[in-house]
Amino acid sequence: MRYSRRILATPSSFIRDILKVTEDPSVTSFAGGLPNPISFPQEALKESACNIIDNYGAKVFQYSTTEGYLPLRQFVADKYNKNFGLNIKPADVLITTGSQQALDLIAKALLNNGDKVIVEEPGYLGAIQAFCMFEPQFMPVTLEHEGLNLEELENALKAGAKFAYLVPNFQNPSGLTYTQERREAICKLFDKYDTVLVEDDPYGELRFKGKKLPYIGAGKLAHSVLLGTFSKTVTPGMRLGYIITQDEELMGHLVTAKQSSDLHTNIFSQYMIADYLAHNEYQKHVDKITALYREQSDSMLSAMREFFPPHVRYTEPEGGMFIWVTLPEGQSALALFHKAMEKKVAFVPGDPFYVDKHDVNTFRLNYTNSTDEMIRDGIKRLASVL
Amino acid sequence: MRYSRRILATPSSFIRDILKVTEDPSVTSFAGGLPNPISFPQEALKESACNIIDNYGAKVFQYSTTEGYLPLRQFVADKYNKNFGLNIKPADVLITTGSQQALDLIAKALLNNGDKVIVEEPGYLGAIQAFCMFEPQFMPVTLEHEGLNLEELENALKAGAKFAYLVPNFQNPSGLTYTQERREAICKLFDKYDTVLVEDDPYGELRFKGKKLPYIGAGKLAHSVLLGTFSKTVTPGMRLGYIITQDEELMGHLVTAKQSSDLHTNIFSQYMIADYLAHNEYQKHVDKITALYREQSDSMLSAMREFFPPHVRYTEPEGGMFIWVTLPEGQSALALFHKAMEKKVAFVPGDPFYVDKHDVNTFRLNYTNSTDEMIRDGIKRLASVL
Repeated sequence: MRYSRRILATPSSFIRDILKVTEDPSVTSFAGGLPNPISFPQEALKESACNIIDNYGAKVFQYSTTEGYLPLRQFVADKYNKNFGLNIKPADVLITTGSQQALDLIAKALLNNGDKVIVEEPGYLGAIQAFCMFEPQFMPVTLEHEGLNLEELENALKAGAKFAYLVPNFQNPSGLTYTQERREAICKLFDKYDTVLVEDDPYGELRFKGKKLPYIGAGKLAHSVLLGTFSKTVTPGMRLGYIITQDEELMGHLVTAKQSSDLHTNIFSQYMIADYLAHNEYQKHVDKITALYREQSDSMLSAMREFFPPHVRYTEPEGGMFIWVTLPEGQSALALFHKAMEKKVAFVPGDPFYVDKHDVNTFRLNYTNSTDEMIRDGIKRLASVL
Repeated sequence: MRYSRRILATPSSFIRDILKVTEDPSVTSFAGGLPNPISFPQEALKESACNIIDNYGAKVFQYSTTEGYLPLRQFVADKYNKNFGLNIKPADVLITTGSQQALDLIAKALLNNGDKVIVEEPGYLGAIQAFCMFEPQFMPVTLEHEGLNLEELENALKAGAKFAYLVPNFQNPSGLTYTQERREAICKLFDKYDTVLVEDDPYGELRFKGKKLPYIGAGKLAHSVLLGTFSKTVTPGMRLGYIITQDEELMGHLVTAKQSSDLHTNIFSQYMIADYLAHNEYQKHVDKITALYREQSDSMLSAMREFFPPHVRYTEPEGGMFIWVTLPEGQSALALFHKAMEKKVAFVPGDPFYVDKHDVNTFRLNYTNSTDEMIRDGIKRLASVL
């Protein structure tokens, strides 16, 4: 066999194929996961690009350190310390080429083939794909309205999973947020086992309803890893994410994995974002994005209330970018997708968010990249085929 | 065991430790592999940063395609078609997060653990590290003055190696260039086997002596892969490299591996470099770098001729960034390193460039990041401990 098992086992990218279909400009697409361009502070970033070349010259163009640009790591540490009362040092922060790379590095550092990995069901498809490359045995645990099912989780921990990957705030794809009680119960469980807890929080700052909740493991568990990104609040195009962990041994291995993967993250962009953060009011900027997403989410939910039949259920997110829809049992979201495309509306059928289920009755809607009119009109057309 | 076998097997980064020792500003370091900052066209890049924000707005900040920015892929295809009479289309080009990522993706797409990989001996340590992550069986083949040893190469091909990784121009670490005859003989061998030939050419444009030679496999072999980068000619800090292959099935798998690794390469930097290339005379810029490296290489070689004892041999590169030194048999370059550090001169002992040899009698010198005076003075001090 010419190719590796891992690459042959990776599903041909279903979502890419779908996104291609939806490139037709006459299609209203709720399929993507793109932040609204309002989140890109273009003029301020242009100023920062000039500033850093003027102020630092060759340094912003030369090879740099694997761990990342120190002032950016300091900003990240300060932000979490201030917002969550944590005690993170810059040395606990590794800048990655987007959060996607963080997933690759964690798998590289921890997984032998056949090792067990806990994922949410449904779970983030990019994480499933990244972990797939290391041929693990997936242990999907049901994501309930309050968070992971505790009994299934404990069974998976008992079975010796190497790590668990959770998105506790406004999860992708479900839009669900773990409750305070469920977070505490999950923390207690992890405390009894050796499994690394990876909390990915790309959307946490984009909360437009309810109150901020503490992390499950960060600052509490010895083998806790927290992931974050600038993709949803400044720019995804520059691929700047980060891994936070106070487990020094694990951090050492992650740095080695990072070095072998791409030496270091784009240093020009690290300087640029650090300069932007130093000279602009980040929190005010995030508040603007959050206000917009609140409106867009309201538009979609009110259209769904108006047009969707009562047998179709859906989540009501407190932040982030997604709503998760459940059709009556036995119905196929994939079949619905084809009918919806005839009405020129697109979404992502649930299949790629499951490790081993096909033709499921769930699908994902994104509201952050459409106008109120597009949302209302698109939901109405979608409802006509439900 | 908490960690993966691959990460535990990866040598603690020897070269990083060495580079730390050499951070002392009173040390003359020939240890690095940094391009001279003359290669960074700072003012032109600043203009390009402004241009792309003004001209393309949100597009340069948004998520983008895994394959890369089309005009940049077109530039790469055109360059090779013009300079080497190849027939590459943009679809044959995948933009990567530096060449280092190309190594990771190739290994991901091709290697199961235990699979055989051919590397040069000595070979590029970053490649050895990247491949290590996928637990291959290395098959080192001796790099002679004219290129790979053909008999050893054929034995490794017969043994069923998945791919071979070669740097035919001004190799890192040896500075050696494969001869025309050896290239042809190697191509003939690969034509008989199924092994993928990966030619990495980061330094090819920086030729200051002799005449340009055709690639070994590009345009000739069905399973040929060519790697290139903008790191040595425009900026390494932005991590922009590329994979070229006309093997469509392999390209499909590499794109999947890329998607799972970091979704796509920094799009802001892709637009920026494409804009720079469209509005500046790239070849003139490369000629300036090459002229400087010719001078620096001449300085180092003439100092070596003057000060080194006759029993110490070394290569005379026709381009690129490195000279490779061989001590008399039985002597240790690592022991010499410690003596040289007392004289405040640093280099990289040969050990990390070998898969399974220790305390070797070879070491690498870099000349691109020191002035003529530093080179002459540093070589004189180094000679005093030889």
